[in-house]
Amino acid sequence: MRATPTLPPSHGADAALGTRYAAVRAATSALAAPLSAEDCALQSMADASPVKWHLAHTTWFFETFLLERYEDKHRPFHPQFRRLFNSYYHAIGERHPRPERGLLSRPSLPEVIAYRADVDARMAALLLRASGDTVLSGLIELGLQHEQQHQELILTDVKHLLSRNPLEPVYRSLPQPAPAAKGRPRWLACAGGLVDVGHAGHGFAFDNEGPRHRVFIAPYELASHPVSHADFAAFVADGGYCRPELWLSLGWDTVVAQRWTAPLYWELRDGAWTTFTLHGRLPIDPAAPVTHVSFFEADAYARWAGARLPTEFEWEAAAAGTPVEGNFADDGVLHPSAPSGPGAQGLAQLYGDCWEWTGSAYLPYPGFAPAPGAVGEYNGKFMCNQFVLRGGSCATPGGHVRATYRNFFPPEARWQFSGLRLARSAG
Amino acid sequence: MRATPTLPPSHGADAALGTRYAAVRAATSALAAPLSAEDCALQSMADASPVKWHLAHTTWFFETFLLERYEDKHRPFHPQFRRLFNSYYHAIGERHPRPERGLLSRPSLPEVIAYRADVDARMAALLLRASGDTVLSGLIELGLQHEQQHQELILTDVKHLLSRNPLEPVYRSLPQPAPAAKGRPRWLACAGGLVDVGHAGHGFAFDNEGPRHRVFIAPYELASHPVSHADFAAFVADGGYCRPELWLSLGWDTVVAQRWTAPLYWELRDGAWTTFTLHGRLPIDPAAPVTHVSFFEADAYARWAGARLPTEFEWEAAAAGTPVEGNFADDGVLHPSAPSGPGAQGLAQLYGDCWEWTGSAYLPYPGFAPAPGAVGEYNGKFMCNQFVLRGGSCATPGGHVRATYRNFFPPEARWQFSGLRLARSAG
Amino acid sequence: MRATPTLPPSHGADAALGTRYAAVRAATSALAAPLSAEDCALQSMADASPVKWHLAHTTWFFETFLLERYEDKHRPFHPQFRRLFNSYYHAIGERHPRPERGLLSRPSLPEVIAYRADVDARMAALLLRASGDTVLSGLIELGLQHEQQHQELILTDVKHLLSRNPLEPVYRSLPQPAPAAKGRPRWLACAGGLVDVGHAGHGFAFDNEGPRHRVFIAPYELASHPVSHADFAAFVADGGYCRPELWLSLGWDTVVAQRWTAPLYWELRDGAWTTFTLHGRLPIDPAAPVTHVSFFEADAYARWAGARLPTEFEWEAAAAGTPVEGNFADDGVLHPSAPSGPGAQGLAQLYGDCWEWTGSAYLPYPGFAPAPGAVGEYNGKFMCNQFVLRGGSCATPGGHVRATYRNFFPPEARWQFSGLRLARSAG
Amino acid sequence: MRATPTLPPSHGADAALGTRYAAVRAATSALAAPLSAEDCALQSMADASPVKWHLAHTTWFFETFLLERYEDKHRPFHPQFRRLFNSYYHAIGERHPRPERGLLSRPSLPEVIAYRADVDARMAALLLRASGDTVLSGLIELGLQHEQQHQELILTDVKHLLSRNPLEPVYRSLPQPAPAAKGRPRWLACAGGLVDVGHAGHGFAFDNEGPRHRVFIAPYELASHPVSHADFAAFVADGGYCRPELWLSLGWDTVVAQRWTAPLYWELRDGAWTTFTLHGRLPIDPAAPVTHVSFFEADAYARWAGARLPTEFEWEAAAAGTPVEGNFADDGVLHPSAPSGPGAQGLAQLYGDCWEWTGSAYLPYPGFAPAPGAVGEYNGKFMCNQFVLRGGSCATPGGHVRATYRNFFPPEARWQFSGLRLARSAG
Repeated sequence: MRATPTLPPSHGADAALGTRYAAVRAATSALAAPLSAEDCALQSMADASPVKWHLAHTTWFFETFLLERYEDKHRPFHPQFRRLFNSYYHAIGERHPRPERGLLSRPSLPEVIAYRADVDARMAALLLRASGDTVLSGLIELGLQHEQQHQELILTDVKHLLSRNPLEPVYRSLPQPAPAAKGRPRWLACAGGLVDVGHAGHGFAFDNEGPRHRVFIAPYELASHPVSHADFAAFVADGGYCRPELWLSLGWDTVVAQRWTAPLYWELRDGAWTTFTLHGRLPIDPAAPVTHVSFFEADAYARWAGARLPTEFEWEAAAAGTPVEGNFADDGVLHPSAPSGPGAQGLAQLYGDCWEWTGSAYLPYPGFAPAPGAVGEYNGKFMCNQFVLRGGSCATPGGHVRATYRNFFPPEARWQFSGLRLARSAG
Repeated sequence: MRATPTLPPSHGADAALGTRYAAVRAATSALAAPLSAEDCALQSMADASPVKWHLAHTTWFFETFLLERYEDKHRPFHPQFRRLFNSYYHAIGERHPRPERGLLSRPSLPEVIAYRADVDARMAALLLRASGDTVLSGLIELGLQHEQQHQELILTDVKHLLSRNPLEPVYRSLPQPAPAAKGRPRWLACAGGLVDVGHAGHGFAFDNEGPRHRVFIAPYELASHPVSHADFAAFVADGGYCRPELWLSLGWDTVVAQRWTAPLYWELRDGAWTTFTLHGRLPIDPAAPVTHVSFFEADAYARWAGARLPTEFEWEAAAAGTPVEGNFADDGVLHPSAPSGPGAQGLAQLYGDCWEWTGSAYLPYPGFAPAPGAVGEYNGKFMCNQFVLRGGSCATPGGHVRATYRNFFPPEARWQFSGLRLARSAG
Repeated sequence: MRATPTLPPSHGADAALGTRYAAVRAATSALAAPLSAEDCALQSMADASPVKWHLAHTTWFFETFLLERYEDKHRPFHPQFRRLFNSYYHAIGERHPRPERGLLSRPSLPEVIAYRADVDARMAALLLRASGDTVLSGLIELGLQHEQQHQELILTDVKHLLSRNPLEPVYRSLPQPAPAAKGRPRWLACAGGLVDVGHAGHGFAFDNEGPRHRVFIAPYELASHPVSHADFAAFVADGGYCRPELWLSLGWDTVVAQRWTAPLYWELRDGAWTTFTLHGRLPIDPAAPVTHVSFFEADAYARWAGARLPTEFEWEAAAAGTPVEGNFADDGVLHPSAPSGPGAQGLAQLYGDCWEWTGSAYLPYPGFAPAPGAVGEYNGKFMCNQFVLRGGSCATPGGHVRATYRNFFPPEARWQFSGLRLARSAG
Repeated sequence: MRATPTLPPSHGADAALGTRYAAVRAATSALAAPLSAEDCALQSMADASPVKWHLAHTTWFFETFLLERYEDKHRPFHPQFRRLFNSYYHAIGERHPRPERGLLSRPSLPEVIAYRADVDARMAALLLRASGDTVLSGLIELGLQHEQQHQELILTDVKHLLSRNPLEPVYRSLPQPAPAAKGRPRWLACAGGLVDVGHAGHGFAFDNEGPRHRVFIAPYELASHPVSHADFAAFVADGGYCRPELWLSLGWDTVVAQRWTAPLYWELRDGAWTTFTLHGRLPIDPAAPVTHVSFFEADAYARWAGARLPTEFEWEAAAAGTPVEGNFADDGVLHPSAPSGPGAQGLAQLYGDCWEWTGSAYLPYPGFAPAPGAVGEYNGKFMCNQFVLRGGSCATPGGHVRATYRNFFPPEARWQFSGLRLARSAG
């Protein structure tokens, strides 16, 4: 999940930016609070990074893209951090290999925290100068949005790490809510037609959300709710993981090679499905949206259900105008919830709870042009062999997503809070 | 390159179908004529199959999908061939593993030829019954289209095999044509707008070409010619394979891992670029279209050139109405040619010579539904992590392609005659 | 199985050498006679080579080590064969990669046969000059011994290839002998003591068989017979492949990774063990020695049986003086036989039938020094992570082995005719 | 490096055993003292383990093999530790996978320290009962010897981890000694003959050191000193890593695949060789023994030098009677030293400084029988594809080794303090 902005943000006031800077940075630190230095140092797979690395890399982003350019007499906090915490920016120079992020016991967690404090102090000076400088403030906002993306990764990466430990450690204890009764999902008709999609106008957006452009969509229907644990358990029980005809060819190859028999983190205990959560291992909540399914599993489920995944534009057209509300990371639940209330009107749980896989490959919009320089280097470069997800999850910071937001992951990725909502063509 | 039809073909007469059957089958045999039994038995990589396997598998298709269903007292030619020459049809049952197709010295080439003759004889009886039976004649036509696809694979697979032999054997000798002067490609304006794409109406098409549907295309421009060897050599000379900023991230990973420094088959000999062809190793023809580049290389070239790849719909909209003419396999050149004539009007070399990578991921069209049963099993199942190519190549049988034809390969594939044509969005 | 000689052979007469040359070369050709060009071209795994490659490489040996040195105006048969058929001699120069030997449809089998004839003709001239030239005749003898080693590999490699074909082709038909009743193996006491081992004196030997030297051996016992199929089936039935405590650690890792459940080529058919042979798939003969077991399996069996493998010196000391008789390739059985006769005296089936794994790592004898130049390059270089086998097999040419002969393979190798004989230390 | 004892130790008094227990356990803790919890949690490769794992596993050994058997009402410290810290004992049951030892952020380092304290307290009670119980005291002694082996691994594993960090952290600072002038090594004659080797008599020994038995050794010579850094640098400078003729075949494959150009940890800085040490990166000390070379490198060096490696029995016969003195871990240098004094008499640096590779494969001695039960499970099971090293290193605890001690590692292992001493056959 990586992208950069093309549109300069328009913020009300500089004080607001400073406040926001402090809040976002504090939120990151708060996520690490329940963790030990050991928890923060380990890397459970090449796709995931140590929490300590996230703490440092988000700080590196400000130091490299802001302080290095704007400070009068810039001196790096540490001469080697520029390389050590560079993720994938060729234009910045050498990078520590991604699979070896878990080999760095040094710098220690306290040193990384000191690094954060040092950069924050220097950023405080820079924030004073951001007033009226849309380029500077745009870059700072980018750094904050970037850091919010890593906040979500901190949660999904540490969840994966803890899940690999036979002791099944708890990230944070939470009383499990009583499972809610799940309303039957309904099909909601959407008109389609010639519609404009993509970001335009005020407010921050990543550059992969633009340019806004016109697409033609045939009439379609969307399910009122995401697919639930109960729904998905029925697919599993019906032999879903044993029937190649339900799967894409690459998906079936993956099922066989990885020996998938259920979503990631699911385990049968005493004959009942449980799942590993940030609160420990729990029974699955039948009414809550299923998560930790790959695109392959989402696609196979949809085929089994006689439906399909929506395109990203079908999703966006339906979402336009809906308030961005839902179960986000700020709520502290950090797990998908059953739909609340007496029965949702229209599209329930559109935002938050789980990212929703779409059937759209992650490709550039017409007219998309990468930003010049290192910041813009990586936009187009991930637009291959990935699929778009929409809507945000229970691990996404509140306020971070919008109707045009495009998340993306390879079709086999499962460690995000990724689920699905069904669609079908009308008539 | 695999797909099945949904639309029943409408053929003039049954005699015509019988004639066509004989012609297609004979063309396949003719392709194997210059090869020894040893040439036909080897497999150079998991992606490629032995020629003998192609000869048998195309015959298996008729035996399994036609004779098995329509013969009164069907007895298979050999009880194990049903499994041995099944490519990937789960609904048919077990399959011999693809990477082990090159371990089959038996059945011998003469036995496979006898298998072909036996099935041809039995098909002759069936062809007499096809008159007026659109389902039967449609299935037969599918078998012939399928066989034509494998004709192309026979050429590309044996080319790859011969290229791996230090003796650099010649498939068929041919005097090399004098290189033609290459006209400067021009940009041709295309209006776009709300257009219908996909197959409809009479004539055969694979089901992945439909349903015909409406898309919105912004105004754009297409290059009059494909990218030439000279063009691509300039990219190589400019350090194209050493500059990560020109590449998709996965593409750059592939360049580094595979140590790519030029298109497949290119080698420097005495300081000049040569390429391996079905006629042996030859100097590159500067004016002829470049081939054997992956999507990654096509995409990087376009970025270097300040352009982009067209979408498949931009390509199709521009091609609509253009006669399907060009350098196809029937011409026997089996290598891309320089553009002929005093200067092509409009879009030159749109068909034949080289498949043209598009920027479109291979995905189902809206409303696409797989055909029931084994024949239709595999349409959707390859719609993941592949890109669409259009136009046909010098190894494609004449008459096999059309404006709506969708070929597809993974972005790293290079052993097909794959090239590119530049596009750009209109001012 | 590769080594070179240090001791010049002493042959009766040159005519004898010429006759021997003709006989050995003809025997190689005879081995290929039942095979098609396709059979001869394929390679079933990196460890095995195509038969055609063996035919060419053994010829290459004479051309490179004899003709290249001794011909007045040497012109190679083909300028690229020196590289193409070099197995692993760094001092000769570049080598075609071993795993790609199966990519060579050219030279064709007829061309390789012509290559053999050409070199034979040129060798005929050289053989006339060999009289009294011990260096020259020693090199020729080396080439013949080398070719005999490859005769065995032709059989084991083509057996492996045919076994990978679901059609289970037959190399050569043979009526299966009636299984003989197996006598109970007895323990035979051996005195040990201070004994001399290794080759000395007249006759050809590979350099790894010397220098002859003194070792001290404690008293021990050897089984009168090799372990039989019935014996080994009892081990399998007793859960031998499921009990890690019976295995070396690396052996158990291999069992798990490779999913071994029985010797190579064994398959249960209708509840009874069968094995693939050069005569097709047959029921195992209970009384015949088990073959196609790795060192790991031999070692585990011995542990299960409360015994151990003999050291190579225990084997050699016991074998000294025993006539070199047994079921060799010349007999044409090409499969281990049950012990014949009313009950063997002493050590039965010591030679022929199956190679016998010893517990000795393949290491240089004290004072071993590699021969200078390319011929001697590779003696020491394989003395690592391999174990010694003794005695020859049903695929070994008659007259090729002796008491001091050291064969060697890595502990996981199974495609040779390798079995075992038990030993134990004397009370 | 793993083995178990067959001979019951004979200790002076129980008080002595208690004192020794306390000393060994304290020494382990002291090794972890310079490290942070993060340093202790990471795993740099599958061959190495986190320090925290070593701290727990050595404790697990006492809990599993002593307390579980001898405590009246045994209750494990934690129900999952039995599985979590089992290294490779099949008879104990399931094991946490070795490559995933670095995924365990929990138990935390403080929890593991508490585990150590708890087991120490319970062992104190058991130690009171050990008086006169040779089985019990033998098992305790085994646990202590086992822990000493892991003390060495703590140092070599953490060295490897720190070396993978671009910050090149220092384990412990130490002033570098002034390089000593290196005396020329001399050849020392050894008579050989019929000698007894292996452990016998009083004192602790691992079971792989016995039974004591007779071997015949031809006269030979040993170098007075191990090969030094200066010696090895000459080999590197002479193209040692570019000349296949100097290497075993597997060794050369490893050189090419791993791109070895010098011993592990060596790097050219400003044109001079440096090496990573537990004190940071330092220039190589020309006179000190080279370490961190594999068997392959040791063997190639010896061939280059016109010599060979000694057999383990040549080494042992020469070492018999020499006092076990040298640069051991207790000295705190933790790096090989130049030979001290005005010129060593006889065999210098025979113990300590660096383990010396021998040319002997690690195989069972005649009559070797594994101990019954889990403790003895793993003796024979590592006797395959490894080579014996002798003498101990600067990371070996003082008093841990003796003339008969057999260490062993695969021929490609380099992360131990492994060097070599040359040998040659006499006359």
